[in-house]
Amino acid sequence: MKTGAGRFFEDYRLGETLVHAVPRTLTDGERALYHALYPARHAVFSSDEFARACGMSSSPLDDLIVFHTVFGKTVPDISLNAVANLGYAEGRWLRPVWPGDTLTATSQVIGLRETSNRTAGVVWVRTEGRNQRDEPVLSYVRWVMVRKRDADATAAAATVPDLAAVVPSEALVVPDGLDFTGYDFARAGEPHAWEDYVPGERIDHRDAVTVEEAEHMLATRLWQNTARVHFDVTQRQDGRRLIYGGHVLSLARTLSFNGLANAQMVVGLNGGSHANPCFAGDTVRAWSEVLDKAETAVPSVGALRLRLVATRGEPFLLRDAAGKYLPEVLLELDYWALLPRRG
Amino acid sequence: MKTGAGRFFEDYRLGETLVHAVPRTLTDGERALYHALYPARHAVFSSDEFARACGMSSSPLDDLIVFHTVFGKTVPDISLNAVANLGYAEGRWLRPVWPGDTLTATSQVIGLRETSNRTAGVVWVRTEGRNQRDEPVLSYVRWVMVRKRDADATAAAATVPDLAAVVPSEALVVPDGLDFTGYDFARAGEPHAWEDYVPGERIDHRDAVTVEEAEHMLATRLWQNTARVHFDVTQRQDGRRLIYGGHVLSLARTLSFNGLANAQMVVGLNGGSHANPCFAGDTVRAWSEVLDKAETAVPSVGALRLRLVATRGEPFLLRDAAGKYLPEVLLELDYWALLPRRG
Amino acid sequence: MKTGAGRFFEDYRLGETLVHAVPRTLTDGERALYHALYPARHAVFSSDEFARACGMSSSPLDDLIVFHTVFGKTVPDISLNAVANLGYAEGRWLRPVWPGDTLTATSQVIGLRETSNRTAGVVWVRTEGRNQRDEPVLSYVRWVMVRKRDADATAAAATVPDLAAVVPSEALVVPDGLDFTGYDFARAGEPHAWEDYVPGERIDHRDAVTVEEAEHMLATRLWQNTARVHFDVTQRQDGRRLIYGGHVLSLARTLSFNGLANAQMVVGLNGGSHANPCFAGDTVRAWSEVLDKAETAVPSVGALRLRLVATRGEPFLLRDAAGKYLPEVLLELDYWALLPRRG
Repeated sequence: MKTGAGRFFEDYRLGETLVHAVPRTLTDGERALYHALYPARHAVFSSDEFARACGMSSSPLDDLIVFHTVFGKTVPDISLNAVANLGYAEGRWLRPVWPGDTLTATSQVIGLRETSNRTAGVVWVRTEGRNQRDEPVLSYVRWVMVRKRDADATAAAATVPDLAAVVPSEALVVPDGLDFTGYDFARAGEPHAWEDYVPGERIDHRDAVTVEEAEHMLATRLWQNTARVHFDVTQRQDGRRLIYGGHVLSLARTLSFNGLANAQMVVGLNGGSHANPCFAGDTVRAWSEVLDKAETAVPSVGALRLRLVATRGEPFLLRDAAGKYLPEVLLELDYWALLPRRG
Repeated sequence: MKTGAGRFFEDYRLGETLVHAVPRTLTDGERALYHALYPARHAVFSSDEFARACGMSSSPLDDLIVFHTVFGKTVPDISLNAVANLGYAEGRWLRPVWPGDTLTATSQVIGLRETSNRTAGVVWVRTEGRNQRDEPVLSYVRWVMVRKRDADATAAAATVPDLAAVVPSEALVVPDGLDFTGYDFARAGEPHAWEDYVPGERIDHRDAVTVEEAEHMLATRLWQNTARVHFDVTQRQDGRRLIYGGHVLSLARTLSFNGLANAQMVVGLNGGSHANPCFAGDTVRAWSEVLDKAETAVPSVGALRLRLVATRGEPFLLRDAAGKYLPEVLLELDYWALLPRRG
Repeated sequence: MKTGAGRFFEDYRLGETLVHAVPRTLTDGERALYHALYPARHAVFSSDEFARACGMSSSPLDDLIVFHTVFGKTVPDISLNAVANLGYAEGRWLRPVWPGDTLTATSQVIGLRETSNRTAGVVWVRTEGRNQRDEPVLSYVRWVMVRKRDADATAAAATVPDLAAVVPSEALVVPDGLDFTGYDFARAGEPHAWEDYVPGERIDHRDAVTVEEAEHMLATRLWQNTARVHFDVTQRQDGRRLIYGGHVLSLARTLSFNGLANAQMVVGLNGGSHANPCFAGDTVRAWSEVLDKAETAVPSVGALRLRLVATRGEPFLLRDAAGKYLPEVLLELDYWALLPRRG
C-alpha cells in the first residue's frame, strides 16, 4: 500500500519527534490570497512603507499565514484521524516571516492519555516552525483526540503535560527593530493606543462575513492542509463540508480590525477552542474582550491580552449558565497582540 | 466606543481633506488574483516582454487595480453610510503603478448638498492616490448620497462643484516612455488599430460571465473595501449580497477585450453610473460604443473615448424612452483608452 | 465586425502556423493561486530549499501551470468552435519555467479530416510554448473536433498525422542540473522511491474534492482560457457550466500526491481523454496505475509511466465491457513523471 491511513493513537510514542512533510516557500502571492480571503487590513502587513516606519525592513507576512502554514504541515501526521481539535497553549511567534522564506515544521509528542472507553486518546504535541536558516519562527502546543486503530491495543501510561494557562508577557518576543515611536495612527485606521484599552472592556467589531464553500477550501488548500472533511462532501453523514477552524480564526482576527486596528501583531497564543463547527452559509461576526495588558522591553510597544470570539449570532454571547459554549459561538481565542504606546 | 459608525452627511465640511487609512503595497500577487477574477487579457498588463516592446520597463499593474485600491481606501470615510454611489467625473490615471509600489489615498470634500427631505445629502469628493514617492497616480471625483445621523441637524449651504462633462484629450497622461511604434498586433490579439474605430460604432463583446458570491467577495476584499452590504447577508431585507460596482466595472472592461484588445490602457474616466444592482447568479455581458477619438502627444498612441455598458440582457440595451436605464443594464461607463496607431 | 466568431474547420490549412495571442508573464502570484485551487504538495514546486537540494536554482513553476498557460493561449484560435477535445499525444516538457518568465505559444496544423456527415472536422495541431529567450518549454499534439461554418464548404484531402502511442523514455528531458542524490524522503512526504513501483500496480489516492463553480472559473481565467462554456450559463441547454478539462487534470494530478508524493515532475504526456464532462458539485477522486518504468540519463532520476484516472465514483473504475468509459470516469491521462532512485 502506497497510501497510508495516517497515524492512530497507539502509533504515538512519548518524546518522539515527527518531521512534517513538504517545506513551503511563502511569497507575495500567498499574502495577496490571504488579503482576498479575509478582510485583512492591519497596516504593518499591508504596506512596506508602514512597516519600514515601524522599524522593519519591509512588510512581513501576516502572523496567521505563518500559523496556518505550520499547522497545515502537521495535519497528515497529527490530525488525519483526529476526532476533535481540543486546544492550544504556549504559542509564541518568535521571528517575522518574509516573502521568500521557506518554512518547515516538526512536532514533539509531549503527552498521551487514552480515553476511558479505550477507543481513542488525547495526543499533545509541541510544534515548531522554522525558516530556511533553521531559526524558529513559531512554537505552540496543540492537543487533539485521535482514534485508535484497534481499541484493544495497549496504550502507554497516561502523561499529561503541565502547560502554562497564559504565556507570561516577559516571554513575548518583540520582533527585532520594531519601534512604534512616530506611529501614524491616521494611516493605521484608528486613534486608539495601548493606553486606551482597559481590562474588562468589550468591543463589538460590527462587520460580518457570510462564508462560501469556495473560500474556505481555497484557504485550507493554501496552507496545504489535507484534512478530508474540509473538501469532500462524502466524509460526513450530513453531506456538509466542515470549515477548517483556522479559517474562522483568520476571519475573526481580521474582522477585529474594526476596534483593534492598532493591535498590529499577534505574538502569543494562550489558548483557544473551536466551540462549534462552522459551515458555508454561516454569517460570522466577532467580538473581543481585553483580558490584560503589559509593557514590553520596547518602550513604544505595549502588549494586550485579548479574548477573541467568533460567533454566528449576536456579539458578547459566549457560554450558558452551565459554562457550555452557546451554539452560536464558533471560536474562543486567548492571545497577545502588540500595540503602539503613546509614550 | 472603539468602533465608529462611520461619517454621516452632517460630519463633512467643505474643503476638508480626509486622509484614508491603510496604505497598500501591491505586488504580482494582486495581479495574479486580478487575472483569475476577471478575463483580463490586455497584453501590456499580461507580459513584461510586451510592455517592454511598448517602451515600458516591465508590465505595470492593470489600471483598474489602481482604481479599486484607491477607491477601497475611501470607503470607510466616504461610503460606509452611503445610500447610493451617484457618479464619477474628471478621472485621470497619472502614472503607472508597478509591483512593489505602495499606494495611499486622500480625498478633499468639494461639494455638499442636502436632499430636500433633509434625511441625507450628496457629498462630492476629489480623491487622489499617490505612490511611495508621493507622486500622484490617480485622481477622480466621486459623489455619493450619504445618510444624516440626525435629520434635524443643520446643513451647510449647498455647494455643487462645476465638473467637466468630459476629460479633455489634452489632459490625458500618456505614461512616460509609452510608444506603440512596432506594436505586435498578432500577439496583442486583434488587428484593429486606432484608425479602424469610428465614432458611433458599436461593439458586442460577445463573452459573458455568470457571477458567483465567492468571486465578488474575494475581489472586494482584495481592495480592502469594507462596505458591509457586499459580505453580510443580514444587511439587506432580501438577504442578498450586493455586488461591489467595481466588480461589474472590471468584468465589463475585461470582457471588452473581444473587440477592443488594443484599447490597452485606461487613462481617463469621464463619467459612470451603476445603473442597477448586480447579484450573484447574474450573467454579465458587455458592449461598447465609440464616442470620440483624439490624437495624443505621442504619434504612435491614439486615444479613444468609449461608452462601456455592462448588462445582464441583450447587447445594445441602455435606456427606455423616458431616458431611464433599462432594468438589465448594470453599468454605464464613459472613459478614454490608449490604442496603437498604424502611423 | 471587430469581434470574430473564431475559426471553423474550413479555415485551417495543413502546415500553417498560428501565432497565439497574449504573451504571459508568470510569477509567484500564479503559483500561489495554483496552490490554493488544487491540493498541490509536490515538494520541488513548493519549496525553493527543496528544489535547491535537487540541483535547481530555486523552485520552478508547477509543470501543469505551464501546460494550462500554453493551452489557454491556443483556445481562441483552436477550440472556440470545438465540439470536443479528442486527444493528446507526444507531449514533452522541455525546460522548467521560473517565476518571472514570459510564455508565448504557437501551433502548427499537422492534420485535417472532415467528418463523414461534413458538418465538422478533426484538426490536429502541434503546439509549442516558448519562454522570453525563445527557448521551447513545452510541446504537445492535440486534436479537436471543430464545426464547419458551412457544411457545403469543400475540405482539403484528409491528412491524419502519424503519432507515437508513447513518448519514448529516451526522448524525455530531465531538467538541467536535476539530481535526486540525497533526496529527502521525509520532507517530500513519502518513503517510496522509483524502485518501489511495479508495472501493473494500482494506487487509490484516497483524497477527494467536491468542486465549486467559483473555483473552476478562477482557474480557467487564470490561464486566460476564454472558452465560453466554462463561464456562461446561457451556453448550454441545461444551464450548466462545463468545467475546463484541465481543471480536472490538475485536481487528479495533485490528488495523486497521496501515494505518488515522489513523482515530482511531469515530463511526458503520452495521451489523454476527457472521458465525461465534469460539473460543479461533483466529488472528484483519483487513482493511478503504473504502466512502465525507465531509467534516464541521470543515475539518481528514474521515470515512471503512469495512468492517472479522475472519477466521481469508486477508484479503479475505467471502462465497461464494450471498452466505453464508465459514466463516473472524467479523465484518463497517460504520462511520464520523474522520481528519485535510491541508488
